[in-house]
Amino acid sequence: MAATPATQPLQVLGIAGSLRRASYNRQLLESARRLAPPALVITPFDIAEVPLYNADHDTDAARPEAVRRLKQAIAASDAVLFAAPEYNHGVPGVLQNAIDWASRPAFASPLAGKPVGMMGASGGISGTMRGQQALKLVLMSTLALMFPHAGIAITLAKDKFDAGGTLAHEPTRELLAVYLADFERWVRRQAALPR
Amino acid sequence: MAATPATQPLQVLGIAGSLRRASYNRQLLESARRLAPPALVITPFDIAEVPLYNADHDTDAARPEAVRRLKQAIAASDAVLFAAPEYNHGVPGVLQNAIDWASRPAFASPLAGKPVGMMGASGGISGTMRGQQALKLVLMSTLALMFPHAGIAITLAKDKFDAGGTLAHEPTRELLAVYLADFERWVRRQAALPR
Repeated sequence: MAATPATQPLQVLGIAGSLRRASYNRQLLESARRLAPPALVITPFDIAEVPLYNADHDTDAARPEAVRRLKQAIAASDAVLFAAPEYNHGVPGVLQNAIDWASRPAFASPLAGKPVGMMGASGGISGTMRGQQALKLVLMSTLALMFPHAGIAITLAKDKFDAGGTLAHEPTRELLAVYLADFERWVRRQAALPR
Repeated sequence: MAATPATQPLQVLGIAGSLRRASYNRQLLESARRLAPPALVITPFDIAEVPLYNADHDTDAARPEAVRRLKQAIAASDAVLFAAPEYNHGVPGVLQNAIDWASRPAFASPLAGKPVGMMGASGGISGTMRGQQALKLVLMSTLALMFPHAGIAITLAKDKFDAGGTLAHEPTRELLAVYLADFERWVRRQAALPR
């Protein structure tokens, strides 16, 4: 029996907004991958190879290979899930830079109409909340569809992740599992809407 | 006769937030350099060589050479003047990335207490106004001193710059000259304040 549309796995591209090897946000993305419902498949994409944006190189002839891969991966996904730190109350430059590439051409890029969600973890008390506010405005400018949700903002990350990099704090794990289940339902609704 | 403090030239580091060779914001920075009062010396710093931020490399042993030069140049300047486009309603990733490096260590970086101003030019009608709002929040988080001013937001840049890349639109040149004179006075006042 063929799978019904409602049970076909959703393919979610996961993008961490930090290049640090032991980044809490990389760990958060990996924990989300493991906590996700069975039909929400999160595949990480590493933005470390995406070079600094330069409009002179943003042509079919000159576009860097990592940018091509990023844009293809977004286009091929049902949704994108970001896990990002907050840098200087804003979007980390490395993440904004990847979005700058992915967002071209304006209003007709792979991000236009793409369901997107976001999470963040910080060592302090901000939980990346200011950075997420900024990231929402950036993503909405691309015409991405922003998941409306109270969100995942993890404070005091050192107390929430174990030494192996797994989100171990049980109440936060439960919140994240609910977020991911809600995200799946919402993404499926977006897919069913006429464009 | 030695120069009095009020007539000693102020050294202003100019940072363009676009890497495009014919960027309007590079052109704006160069036009500002030429329109500045005699005692406001603007020296451009090119952020093209500043690599993607990675906290693992943000150590005295591993910090990239371009980052060292950027931080030294900010520290040695009396003020910093940004000329930046707006990307996706926000701060261009390449500029945020440079600030991410320069802003460490938090609250004790070369940006803390540094007088900063900003300008922007765009091809459309935004004049980079949304990007400047975002950039203000980012810079204020570093404890930089933000020049309070109505600002320079140049719309429809194609009509304001000539083919040689000079800001040619006379009313805008006058606005910019006033901005730069006001900036000089304000920076001198900041320098006279106790820290």
